[in-house]
Amino acid sequence: PQSKLPALGTTIFTQMSALAQKHNAINLSQGFPDFDGPEYLKHQLSVHVAAGANQYAPMTGTPALRNAIAAKTALLYGYQPDADSDITITSGATEALYVAITALVSAGDEVISFDPSYDCYAPAVQLAGGVMKRIQLQPPAFKVDWAQFAAQISDRTKVVIINTPHNPTATTWRAEDIDQLWQIIAERNIFVISDEVYEHICFAENGHASVLRHPQLRQRAVTVSSFGKTFHMTGWRVGYCVAPAAISVELRKIHQFLTFAITTPVQLALADMLREHPEHWQELPEFYQAKRDRLTQGLANSRLKVLPSAGTYFLLVDYSDVSDLDDVAFCHWLVEHVGVAAIPLSVFCAEPFPHKLIRLCFAKREATLDAAAERLCQL
Amino acid sequence: PQSKLPALGTTIFTQMSALAQKHNAINLSQGFPDFDGPEYLKHQLSVHVAAGANQYAPMTGTPALRNAIAAKTALLYGYQPDADSDITITSGATEALYVAITALVSAGDEVISFDPSYDCYAPAVQLAGGVMKRIQLQPPAFKVDWAQFAAQISDRTKVVIINTPHNPTATTWRAEDIDQLWQIIAERNIFVISDEVYEHICFAENGHASVLRHPQLRQRAVTVSSFGKTFHMTGWRVGYCVAPAAISVELRKIHQFLTFAITTPVQLALADMLREHPEHWQELPEFYQAKRDRLTQGLANSRLKVLPSAGTYFLLVDYSDVSDLDDVAFCHWLVEHVGVAAIPLSVFCAEPFPHKLIRLCFAKREATLDAAAERLCQL
Ligand SMILES: CSCCC(=O)C(=O)O
Ligand SMILES: CSCCC(=O)C(=O)O
Repeated sequence: PQSKLPALGTTIFTQMSALAQKHNAINLSQGFPDFDGPEYLKHQLSVHVAAGANQYAPMTGTPALRNAIAAKTALLYGYQPDADSDITITSGATEALYVAITALVSAGDEVISFDPSYDCYAPAVQLAGGVMKRIQLQPPAFKVDWAQFAAQISDRTKVVIINTPHNPTATTWRAEDIDQLWQIIAERNIFVISDEVYEHICFAENGHASVLRHPQLRQRAVTVSSFGKTFHMTGWRVGYCVAPAAISVELRKIHQFLTFAITTPVQLALADMLREHPEHWQELPEFYQAKRDRLTQGLANSRLKVLPSAGTYFLLVDYSDVSDLDDVAFCHWLVEHVGVAAIPLSVFCAEPFPHKLIRLCFAKREATLDAAAERLCQL
Repeated sequence: PQSKLPALGTTIFTQMSALAQKHNAINLSQGFPDFDGPEYLKHQLSVHVAAGANQYAPMTGTPALRNAIAAKTALLYGYQPDADSDITITSGATEALYVAITALVSAGDEVISFDPSYDCYAPAVQLAGGVMKRIQLQPPAFKVDWAQFAAQISDRTKVVIINTPHNPTATTWRAEDIDQLWQIIAERNIFVISDEVYEHICFAENGHASVLRHPQLRQRAVTVSSFGKTFHMTGWRVGYCVAPAAISVELRKIHQFLTFAITTPVQLALADMLREHPEHWQELPEFYQAKRDRLTQGLANSRLKVLPSAGTYFLLVDYSDVSDLDDVAFCHWLVEHVGVAAIPLSVFCAEPFPHKLIRLCFAKREATLDAAAERLCQL
């Protein structure tokens, strides 16, 4: 058949994880923990499976999980979405993002995103017939120039995709950024898709600047999150989105024909976990900050320069003192000759990104982080 | 936002299951078992979760599951697809169908399907910008008139969607039908999406007429199946599709940005089940035939006429001796006043379908079937 996405290959994550395996390297590329999630959560899954909760969940998600999300959101952001009409459970954040884009973007609509940007936004926009307008941000701070952003808006602008804490740069937005965004789009018919899958892994002083804290913007936004990151279970594939009822109705029309419903006993186990163990996500920043600091420490005597990580389980390192290779070539060299797999930043950008930056994942056991640091110190 | 699918409401399955709950009725509407899947399968899920198989699976599916599917397919249909390049694991058959349609259909392409047709085909075609050409089949046999089919084909025809064993009519195709289809499309650039989710629930004399048995047609086809039906676990959400490498490459480009990967420990448990207990699916026709016969028997003294069911876990009944209501109104009346939920056939048709037929699901315990039959005998 003729390709609908002719320019597209396999994702960088699949590629680098495969190379890591081939070269028996330490895999700090694809973002996933090399440790397991909470015993309680695993146990509850077995309990619900044994109890026979194995048939279709409601299309929108099990009430128990939607209620637990509503309660958590209220606690965190001072805003309680309606569990019935505003919350939809999806097959990971990936499906939530695809559904949101498909529901909101029609042929010819323009979608603004900020580069580096996560790799699943653009293909979904392309399949919906939309046109991506990608604004390149610059290291080390990757700050938005709001005048430049405002200049990108046209009568065809339909959606802005934002992401904080930000993958792959590990930067975060502040509440002021959300305000700025709102000021510019308030008078226009523009929606926001806010990718907040690392909402619970935020080291920033004032916490995570969720769109859900903003009384006006949240009425125009689809906020996407995920349990894989929060509970160290990236293979369980449960995400969700929060959006006002008028938007959720449209999201659900797509969702019901995309995946219909999400694994029932997994939803029930996650609901138990959220309800019974709020300390898990409350302690997550501390948990991951220790890992971030350990890897940073481990690289102190290397020739790599570590950039600050304000959120996510990633950090960027600058290898310009080590090699002249471009970032893709450097990652290939690194996995083969040093035995550490990392992710190049340029693959997340539409225009050339001639910086010597790679992304390391620190969602790893101390022994893994130490071993990787030791290898990287030999550079 | 403006709706991308303005004509669309909640699926009939969600509607009727909700009404069944509201009226405390026996739910023979949405197709799911009211009994649990095999203990071994449930146990294996717990084993893999406990063992820590909780991070991202490969995007295409775990090798263990793809290999088990390849082996099962060879055994059943005398054709072994390549586990690496031809098989992709999806979030239920629903995602597989959505992915196949999205990969193959571009704006303006025509897609032929046969009505009554399952409700997830048309929205996916519409979102891809395709145009549905729906051919109405007539009860009780719902046979395709191949001359009429050939007359529907145009230069814009891109895909034909077929489904056997057929939901909702419980009819099946024979190998001759597959041959006929091939004869007509052989010289044209037309793909086939074959929904075979009930492949293991086929009572027809010569077994299930899979597209995968046809050496030429399978080179042009995406064959979709599901484990929910086969293992009585509709809530586990694992399906798959088989397609030649050139098509699978395109399917996977969509899948990787739709759901990325499917629940890891569930995939591993299903692989164990397929490998260790082939007798489960081998005995499935017998298992379901007994349930079909029990419900048919139970209705023998009713004023409903039972149509033959050659496959799926559904059967159609004609209520024309009971009521003049149209099928939708009759189902609403039935759930409220008789306490049995069923599915009207007309919702699966684009043109008026003035027959007095409703669908009953017999994937139920004997006690449930007997109780439903008793109520229906009072009509
Ligand atoms: C969906 S695989 C990629 C995991 C991830 O989010 C990342 O590594 O950035
Ligand atoms: C995906 S919910 C509907 C279940 C089903 O396939 C049916 O009842 O026909």
